[in-house]
Amino acid sequence: MENVERPGSLWRVDRFCAILCITYTDGGIKVKAARLYGPGDLRIDELGVPEPGPGQVLLQVLTVGVCGSGVHYFLDGGIGDDRVKEPFVIGHEFSARVAALGDGVGGPAVGTRVAVEPAISCGECEFCLAGHPNICKNILFCSTPPTPGALQEYIVHPAELCFPIPDAISDAQGALLEPLGIALHAVSLAKLHPGDVVAILGCGPIGLLTLQVTRICGARAAYVTDVVPERLAMAEKLGATAVFKADEGDPVAWVKAQTGGRGVDVAFEAAWADETVAQAAEMARNGGKLIMVGIPREDVATFPAHAVRRKGLTIKYVRRMKHTYPRAIPMVRDGLIDLESLITHRFPLEKAAEAYNLVASYGDGVIKVVIEVGT
Amino acid sequence: MENVERPGSLWRVDRFCAILCITYTDGGIKVKAARLYGPGDLRIDELGVPEPGPGQVLLQVLTVGVCGSGVHYFLDGGIGDDRVKEPFVIGHEFSARVAALGDGVGGPAVGTRVAVEPAISCGECEFCLAGHPNICKNILFCSTPPTPGALQEYIVHPAELCFPIPDAISDAQGALLEPLGIALHAVSLAKLHPGDVVAILGCGPIGLLTLQVTRICGARAAYVTDVVPERLAMAEKLGATAVFKADEGDPVAWVKAQTGGRGVDVAFEAAWADETVAQAAEMARNGGKLIMVGIPREDVATFPAHAVRRKGLTIKYVRRMKHTYPRAIPMVRDGLIDLESLITHRFPLEKAAEAYNLVASYGDGVIKVVIEVGT
Amino acid sequence: MENVERPGSLWRVDRFCAILCITYTDGGIKVKAARLYGPGDLRIDELGVPEPGPGQVLLQVLTVGVCGSGVHYFLDGGIGDDRVKEPFVIGHEFSARVAALGDGVGGPAVGTRVAVEPAISCGECEFCLAGHPNICKNILFCSTPPTPGALQEYIVHPAELCFPIPDAISDAQGALLEPLGIALHAVSLAKLHPGDVVAILGCGPIGLLTLQVTRICGARAAYVTDVVPERLAMAEKLGATAVFKADEGDPVAWVKAQTGGRGVDVAFEAAWADETVAQAAEMARNGGKLIMVGIPREDVATFPAHAVRRKGLTIKYVRRMKHTYPRAIPMVRDGLIDLESLITHRFPLEKAAEAYNLVASYGDGVIKVVIEVGT
Amino acid sequence: MENVERPGSLWRVDRFCAILCITYTDGGIKVKAARLYGPGDLRIDELGVPEPGPGQVLLQVLTVGVCGSGVHYFLDGGIGDDRVKEPFVIGHEFSARVAALGDGVGGPAVGTRVAVEPAISCGECEFCLAGHPNICKNILFCSTPPTPGALQEYIVHPAELCFPIPDAISDAQGALLEPLGIALHAVSLAKLHPGDVVAILGCGPIGLLTLQVTRICGARAAYVTDVVPERLAMAEKLGATAVFKADEGDPVAWVKAQTGGRGVDVAFEAAWADETVAQAAEMARNGGKLIMVGIPREDVATFPAHAVRRKGLTIKYVRRMKHTYPRAIPMVRDGLIDLESLITHRFPLEKAAEAYNLVASYGDGVIKVVIEVGT
Repeated sequence: MENVERPGSLWRVDRFCAILCITYTDGGIKVKAARLYGPGDLRIDELGVPEPGPGQVLLQVLTVGVCGSGVHYFLDGGIGDDRVKEPFVIGHEFSARVAALGDGVGGPAVGTRVAVEPAISCGECEFCLAGHPNICKNILFCSTPPTPGALQEYIVHPAELCFPIPDAISDAQGALLEPLGIALHAVSLAKLHPGDVVAILGCGPIGLLTLQVTRICGARAAYVTDVVPERLAMAEKLGATAVFKADEGDPVAWVKAQTGGRGVDVAFEAAWADETVAQAAEMARNGGKLIMVGIPREDVATFPAHAVRRKGLTIKYVRRMKHTYPRAIPMVRDGLIDLESLITHRFPLEKAAEAYNLVASYGDGVIKVVIEVGT
Repeated sequence: MENVERPGSLWRVDRFCAILCITYTDGGIKVKAARLYGPGDLRIDELGVPEPGPGQVLLQVLTVGVCGSGVHYFLDGGIGDDRVKEPFVIGHEFSARVAALGDGVGGPAVGTRVAVEPAISCGECEFCLAGHPNICKNILFCSTPPTPGALQEYIVHPAELCFPIPDAISDAQGALLEPLGIALHAVSLAKLHPGDVVAILGCGPIGLLTLQVTRICGARAAYVTDVVPERLAMAEKLGATAVFKADEGDPVAWVKAQTGGRGVDVAFEAAWADETVAQAAEMARNGGKLIMVGIPREDVATFPAHAVRRKGLTIKYVRRMKHTYPRAIPMVRDGLIDLESLITHRFPLEKAAEAYNLVASYGDGVIKVVIEVGT
Repeated sequence: MENVERPGSLWRVDRFCAILCITYTDGGIKVKAARLYGPGDLRIDELGVPEPGPGQVLLQVLTVGVCGSGVHYFLDGGIGDDRVKEPFVIGHEFSARVAALGDGVGGPAVGTRVAVEPAISCGECEFCLAGHPNICKNILFCSTPPTPGALQEYIVHPAELCFPIPDAISDAQGALLEPLGIALHAVSLAKLHPGDVVAILGCGPIGLLTLQVTRICGARAAYVTDVVPERLAMAEKLGATAVFKADEGDPVAWVKAQTGGRGVDVAFEAAWADETVAQAAEMARNGGKLIMVGIPREDVATFPAHAVRRKGLTIKYVRRMKHTYPRAIPMVRDGLIDLESLITHRFPLEKAAEAYNLVASYGDGVIKVVIEVGT
Repeated sequence: MENVERPGSLWRVDRFCAILCITYTDGGIKVKAARLYGPGDLRIDELGVPEPGPGQVLLQVLTVGVCGSGVHYFLDGGIGDDRVKEPFVIGHEFSARVAALGDGVGGPAVGTRVAVEPAISCGECEFCLAGHPNICKNILFCSTPPTPGALQEYIVHPAELCFPIPDAISDAQGALLEPLGIALHAVSLAKLHPGDVVAILGCGPIGLLTLQVTRICGARAAYVTDVVPERLAMAEKLGATAVFKADEGDPVAWVKAQTGGRGVDVAFEAAWADETVAQAAEMARNGGKLIMVGIPREDVATFPAHAVRRKGLTIKYVRRMKHTYPRAIPMVRDGLIDLESLITHRFPLEKAAEAYNLVASYGDGVIKVVIEVGT
């Protein structure tokens, strides 16, 4: 046996159990939850109020963002091997208010508004100990079965994953700290050198956040492509050096022309499309980097082999995020990042299905949709 | 208030308390401990057997290494601000056998032989979460007041810091996994490039271990200096490309001559002496690195300013270690590192004072001394 | 125009011209050369002796290694877009003796035995200036049309790319410094952490050299797969922790079992096969790295998307090498790397076609074949 | 002999000779130059017009910045071992117009306005080849004896170190690209992580430029200290989160308070003072970095040993810059960096002594002084 595991007790096992074995408070109080019954079938149900276990808090959900992976669930009933088998609450980008504390929890105090890191890492495995909870081998994820998501009025969550937000950050912005974390992690992986030139392929919410982060983290120019005019206009507003409508010409030739034939230091693939993967590889300069932010639907990632080999490229896959909330919160509070402009539509919990359908349609100039669950 | 702390409960607070508030088992059983009463005054006392708290194990101490910082304590009654105020057990390099498990502890099983990481990090602060327990801001350290050390027959310690060792690793070698961890961390910080050339200034146990690690981690040549002939001979045995007696000539000129005038890619300062700090800076090539492994007695570190600036050097300070046991154990088991050759003397617990005096004297060809406490 | 090019004169333009416009010495002296006329058609011709231009030396070729890309040329008449259109000299792994110096050349002195870096970078482009001649945008490569290769008795080459070798390195070993450089660069890209565990998929010459380099650059264990028994046996001799015959079971399951289910920190893909690319991705631990050393025949590189994304992998493509000769030469001279064991067959220049056919056949226990051109 | 040097001809030796053996054009044309005869003794002399050698251009100097090292020369007659022994032209931050091309020079075209990299690296040594011309072992530096500086109407310089500047960059801004390069290199060394918090000790021109670069390269907050009110005000204008007058309290306590007790991720020492070195070490968080930008007058750099060791700090010395002009020029052109605000005073060449005296006095709100030599 080669592997030397860290020995000793599983200190956090209780908290893990608590997440997986939710109990409900007595008294018959019922609260609303949006549950997915199958592809496209999202219903408003009434559930009991969960009880926070040791190390957990009970949260009153405030605002939930509609995200791409949620749309995958809504449309397909799952992502890859993760499938919805029984009525299931989706949604993992959310802000909340602390409603009650479980055993041994010192804070945040009841009443505090918080942004919530939805990934529950074990804190004990090799990867957690090395500071990479995003690749924890025991990870649970809020809104991935069997862990229910946030489209419900009350939810329990580990206290230490609930980050207080100041008044300057609204409920909806608090929900968007989650995708901002992805963008921060993506740009961290890129290790931008001061004065780098980047391309961002796809400007949905993640692409637009990645764009903003690159501009305050070393990129002196950012070239952005997409097919939706409203998104390109938003990219220009949020710091793109130039934008290109990818279905009206050759995005690779455009980026090459913009960079004097050289290509970009880093290409961020944030479009979740096959052609953008190849484009990203072709846009990169010799020795450049591809940061893969998008999530492919199929289990195949295909690159142009000669280009990636002859240029000696590095390809990095973004897997969630780590340690981003303590950095993201003051960045938003101090106005370094604009979350507000991304929010194009707001719905009440009752109209959650409508919200998901809108995002799936790419219609009505939609960029980011939030669902207002509570106040 | 700028700082955004990780919120939530202090899950490990119990364990911390347990370390600081040791309770003793009933029954009046007494065991031996070597306690320091003041400079040079190390006495064998009888103490009760401590009781393992939650998350802890009770350990029967097997072998304890005599280390440089222990000698500082023995000679001076402390290091810097850390002073012995009342009778205090020293010693932090040790192997042990698990004797009992505290509450909630799943392993290692009673009877297991273990090597022990003596630094007890909180697991909750920014630095622990980022994977750097060695710079934990709440750290407790076995043998730094108020946390008692290992020169006693029984000690309690967090279970997760006790790493099982195979039969191929002896009790004494198990104790030496601690200084090996320092050497591994030092070489990790150096980020050796395949084929680098290094210098190691000082070949006490840490220097000799650093030497061995560099030779299997990319250094194609290692030049070693010291003033003790037996240590230089040991360095030659353990992989030095060439050695130099530093008090019989100019070590800088020697290293320059060995490297065709170029200097070394990385210089490891492991001698704890003022002159070796300046020598290390002069030995480094343009753009090279200094890895500061030694612990200065005074609160002053002085470098030759023009040399470090004109060469554009990087200076890194080694602060303890991180995540080294799971790597060190198979390296020793598989024969990649020779710990046995370093051990020149063995003493029983009763002669602990003699052991410390020997190390302090640099006499009798001493390199590493171990104290055999139990079996 | 975005791009800011380094201005000024092309100082090295003369040397580039010299390479592309070879002139021949008067006097009608004829020397032998092996020229490729088409797939499988390698003939021994008589050519004039080239004259070294400014900055060049005339080299008498000693020994040439038969490499994988040469076999591609031999079998297919080209690689990708690079095709042989007229009779063409192949071969780029070689040692030589300096026969004459061109204008302005101070050395190496006539008579010196040298190992030759075959890639001629411009020294002026952004990537050369930044220290990455391997991704030079103006690169010429010895044995890639229009630059003739080394399977001839005399060749001209830039003086600064000819590295003197000591007596301890034979002519044949001198030729193998080129593939060793690839292996050194591959391991440099991996940035091994002390104590890492690696897998090497494919143990042809490059895989066997990569294996050796990993073992002295931080890998505490190396798991090796291939389908040829002689190569696996050689891997065991040269430092593999364990080997696996990839067509007699599941290599991924084997590596997982060897590593306690964890996988390896770094997987080196050196087999040039589609299935090994997927295997490498499956063998890597969460957060691990894939180093792509092999050269795919097709212009498609396909990865299992879910595995690379969920594990958050980094994929790096090896593009030739940089700055490796000054490191490789002392490593071989001092016995840190064994080149000799790799050489299984030797042929004279006249039997060059036989040599390429043998390598292509994988027969007779062939690992590395060298062609002895001169002495 | 250990060292394996890159062999071959010194292609750039001619250019080096040309720099050191300037010849003058016939015809008796005389132009003005400010030459230093000894401490404080700067005179306007008439010299001949130099002739550009191979690879060089003749430049008509436009604007020269007065920098700290120039003030050292002016006040002391030298820096460290570099002393003025005969009348010597100082000044190395400058813009110019190309007046003539030497042999083999393809550009920039006569008439082009350029910013000039003053450090002339050899392009042949190990460090140049590895992409680090700033630590070239054969470096010549414009304005360090024996290489004359830019305070003269005409100067010769290697063509490839003259970077064309667009109309959007004025002559004076062109001169300030040199200190901006230092700042860019300093921030590159810091490898800022998105959302880092930094301190900048000292806000002379280099500190103010470093401040600006940090704010677009990842620093979410920058705390700045100095003793000159006008400089602190300028720091606030240019992006400081908060500023502190260092002689009116404890800068370390202030930074700690601003960061909730944590300290900063990176401290840039840009004040050239003993106390700021210690302050930088105390301001850094555990595991943080010190970037040493300032140039000490004495050959001693003293750090608080316990702080740097216990926190496990990394200390990096900034040695000039590398590859910064192609990045800096578009950053200034596009308005990402404000050079104009730094320029507080302008003098004609005839009043050069007055300019140096002003900078040395720290009077009249001086930040950056430029000397207008030509137009």
